[in-house]
Amino acid sequence: MVFKKITMIGTSEESFEAAADDAIDRAEDTLENVYWAEVEEFGVELQNAVDREYQAEVEIAFELAD
Amino acid sequence: MVFKKITMIGTSEESFEAAADDAIDRAEDTLENVYWAEVEEFGVELQNAVDREYQAEVEIAFELAD
Amino acid sequence: MVFKKITMIGTSEESFEAAADDAIDRAEDTLENVYWAEVEEFGVELQNAVDREYQAEVEIAFELAD
Amino acid sequence: MVFKKITMIGTSEESFEAAADDAIDRAEDTLENVYWAEVEEFGVELQNAVDREYQAEVEIAFELAD
Amino acid sequence: MVFKKITMIGTSEESFEAAADDAIDRAEDTLENVYWAEVEEFGVELQNAVDREYQAEVEIAFELAD
Amino acid sequence: MVFKKITMIGTSEESFEAAADDAIDRAEDTLENVYWAEVEEFGVELQNAVDREYQAEVEIAFELAD
Amino acid sequence: MVFKKITMIGTSEESFEAAADDAIDRAEDTLENVYWAEVEEFGVELQNAVDREYQAEVEIAFELAD
Amino acid sequence: MVFKKITMIGTSEESFEAAADDAIDRAEDTLENVYWAEVEEFGVELQNAVDREYQAEVEIAFELAD
Amino acid sequence: MVFKKITMIGTSEESFEAAADDAIDRAEDTLENVYWAEVEEFGVELQNAVDREYQAEVEIAFELAD
Amino acid sequence: MVFKKITMIGTSEESFEAAADDAIDRAEDTLENVYWAEVEEFGVELQNAVDREYQAEVEIAFELAD
Amino acid sequence: MVFKKITMIGTSEESFEAAADDAIDRAEDTLENVYWAEVEEFGVELQNAVDREYQAEVEIAFELAD
Amino acid sequence: MVFKKITMIGTSEESFEAAADDAIDRAEDTLENVYWAEVEEFGVELQNAVDREYQAEVEIAFELAD
Repeated sequence: MVFKKITMIGTSEESFEAAADDAIDRAEDTLENVYWAEVEEFGVELQNAVDREYQAEVEIAFELAD
Repeated sequence: MVFKKITMIGTSEESFEAAADDAIDRAEDTLENVYWAEVEEFGVELQNAVDREYQAEVEIAFELAD
Repeated sequence: MVFKKITMIGTSEESFEAAADDAIDRAEDTLENVYWAEVEEFGVELQNAVDREYQAEVEIAFELAD
Repeated sequence: MVFKKITMIGTSEESFEAAADDAIDRAEDTLENVYWAEVEEFGVELQNAVDREYQAEVEIAFELAD
Repeated sequence: MVFKKITMIGTSEESFEAAADDAIDRAEDTLENVYWAEVEEFGVELQNAVDREYQAEVEIAFELAD
Repeated sequence: MVFKKITMIGTSEESFEAAADDAIDRAEDTLENVYWAEVEEFGVELQNAVDREYQAEVEIAFELAD
Repeated sequence: MVFKKITMIGTSEESFEAAADDAIDRAEDTLENVYWAEVEEFGVELQNAVDREYQAEVEIAFELAD
Repeated sequence: MVFKKITMIGTSEESFEAAADDAIDRAEDTLENVYWAEVEEFGVELQNAVDREYQAEVEIAFELAD
Repeated sequence: MVFKKITMIGTSEESFEAAADDAIDRAEDTLENVYWAEVEEFGVELQNAVDREYQAEVEIAFELAD
Repeated sequence: MVFKKITMIGTSEESFEAAADDAIDRAEDTLENVYWAEVEEFGVELQNAVDREYQAEVEIAFELAD
Repeated sequence: MVFKKITMIGTSEESFEAAADDAIDRAEDTLENVYWAEVEEFGVELQNAVDREYQAEVEIAFELAD
Repeated sequence: MVFKKITMIGTSEESFEAAADDAIDRAEDTLENVYWAEVEEFGVELQNAVDREYQAEVEIAFELAD
C-alpha cells in the first residue's frame, strides 16, 4: 500500500471549507482512492479578485493502484 | 495560577468551526475553567468517512483547581 | 513596488472567516491597496468572552504608495 | 467522534521501531481504541543507559468513548 | 522504561524561572519520578493580570511506574 | 540539470526502513534517475491495519531527462 | 474587537525578564490597551556591548480603539 | 480557479537567481499558466560538481485548466 | 536601547539582492538608525509581472529614538 | 557542567539505527563523555551509492572536561 | 570577515541567564572575538541533578582570525 | 563514510552568493573533502558595516577521513 501526496490550492468566495473542497473536488475528478487532505495554509486574496477570495492550500493523499 | 493543555481532535461534516467546537464541547463535559483553544491542524477525512469529514486538532487550556 | 506587512487579530462569534474578515476590514479602514492576507493562527477564546469567540491572526500585505 | 492525543517516550536497546512500539504497548495497556501514532523525535541515550538506548517520542491518538 | 509528557503553563510576577518552577511544582504535587522539563514558550500577560505576569509553557516528562 | 521531488508514503509491517523502501521501490518502478529520498515523517497505523503498520512519508528526488 | 501585534527588541544588562520588560515599557509609552507579549527569541550581545547585554525579541499585542 | 504546486530543484554555476530560473524555465517548458514560485531552500554542491554549483529548490504554482 | 522590527517585501527584475535592497531603501527613506535586515522568504512572481520579478520579504530592525 | 553539541551524518546499508550508530561510533573514537544524540534527519542516498544507503544526521552532545 | 557558530549547553541552579552565561563563559575561555549568542532552547533537569538545574542551549558566534 | 557539519557565516558587499562563497572558501582553507553547503539564513548588516554587507549563514558538510 503506497500513497502519493500532491499539493493543490482551491479558492472560494464563501468560506475556507469551500476553498478546501474546491481543491479536493478537482483532485477527485482525475484521481481515484483519495484518502485524506491536510491544510497547509489559508489565505485571502484581495487585490486580484473581484471580491474577497478565500484560499486553501492542501496536501491531498491518494492510494496508488498496484 | 497554573494551566494544563490537552490535545484533542474534533470532527464535523459541516465546517472547521464545528470540528473545533466538537473537541471543545467534549473537553467542557469533563473539565471546568476551560480558558482557550489553539488550532494545531485542520484536515479532511475522505476514505474512512461516509461523507467528507472536517477535522480540527486543537490544544485546549484549562486552569487547574488549587 | 514595495509591500509592507502588518499583523492583526480579528474576532467573531460566527466563524473563522468572519474573524479573518474582521481584521481585514479594520486594515482597509485606514490602508489603501491591501493585496492579500495570510492566516498565521486560529484560536478560540472561551473564558474572557461572553460566548465562544473565534480568533484569526493574519498578516496583511499592502502596497506602499510611491 | 472525538480523539485525544497523548505524548509518550518509549525506549529500546534494539531499534527505533521497538522504542516506538514500547510506548504504544504501554498506551494500549490502559487505553482502548488507539488509532495511530506519530513520531515526534528519535534520540539515543548513551550516558545514563547500560548500553545504547534508542528513544522514540510519539504522539498517540485514541478515540474517546461516548 | 516509558515516559509520558504533559504540557503545563505556570505563572509568576517575578521571573521566567519562577513561572517554569510554578508549573513544575504543581506537576510534582501529583506525579512521582518527574525527570525533566522543556520550555515551549514564554509570554507576559498584561491586561488580565494585576501586574505583569510572566508565563512559561513547559512540557514535563515523568517516568510511568511499571 | 533539473530535479523534481515528489512525496510518497510507504508502508510496512516490519520496520521504518522497509516502509521507506516501499515508497522508493514504487517510485523506481516508473521513474529513472532517482537520486535520493528525505524522510518527512514516520508514523504507525493501528486501527485501520491488520497489525501495526509502520509508515514513512518521503520526498523522492529524481533528475528530469533533457 | 481587533488587536494589532508589533515586534520589538528590548535589552538589559541584568536579565531576560528585564529585556522583555524594556520592550514592553517602551510599547506602553505610546500605546494603550496593551494585552500581552510573546517571546520570539532571546539572545546575548557580547561584542557591541560594554558588558553582556541580554536581548528579548517580543511580539506585543494591543487592542485597536474603535 | 484551482492551482497545483510542484517542487523542482534548479542548478547554476552563476547565481541563486539563475538556479531558481533554471527550475522555472523547465516548468514552463511543459506547463502553461505558471503563476509564481517560492524558494524552499538554497544550497551549494561542491563534491559532485565540476565547479561550485548553486542549487535552488522551488515550489512552482500553476493554474489548472478547466 | 530598544529596536522595532517591520516586515517589508521588495521587488526587482534583476536579483534577490536588489529585491532585498529595494525594501531596505524604502525603509531608510522614512526611518533613521536602521541596523539590520533578515530575509524571511524569497519568491518569483511570474503571472502578474511583465517579466520575472524577484521578491524578498525582509524583517528590518531599527533603533527607536529615546 | 557544560556540554557541546556537534552535528554528524552516519551512513549504513542496513538500517537507520546503524546509520545513527555509525556517527556515534565515530564521535566516541575521539570524544569522551558523550551523553546523548538527537536525530535531526533521516535520508536515503540512491544515485551516489552502490546500493541504498541509509543516512542519519545526528546532533551529539558531550560534556566538556573542566 | 567570517564567523563560526558552535552549540553549547550551560547549566545553573540559579536562573536561565546564569545557564546561558555558563556556556558563554566556557566559550570565552578558549575563543577570542566572541560576538553574540542565540538561545536555542531552555530546559530544567530534575532527576539527574541534586536540585533543579536550569539549562540553556545556545549558539555562540565568534569571528575567525585571518 | 561519516560526515561532519559546521556552521559558518560569510559576508560580502556584492551578493548573497559571494557571502556564501566567503564562508565556503574559508572552510576549504582548512578542510578537505567538503561536499556541500546548505543556506540557513540570509541577512543584511547595515549599521555596523561601512556599506551594506550581505551575510549568509551556511552549514558546511565534509567527509571525515578514516
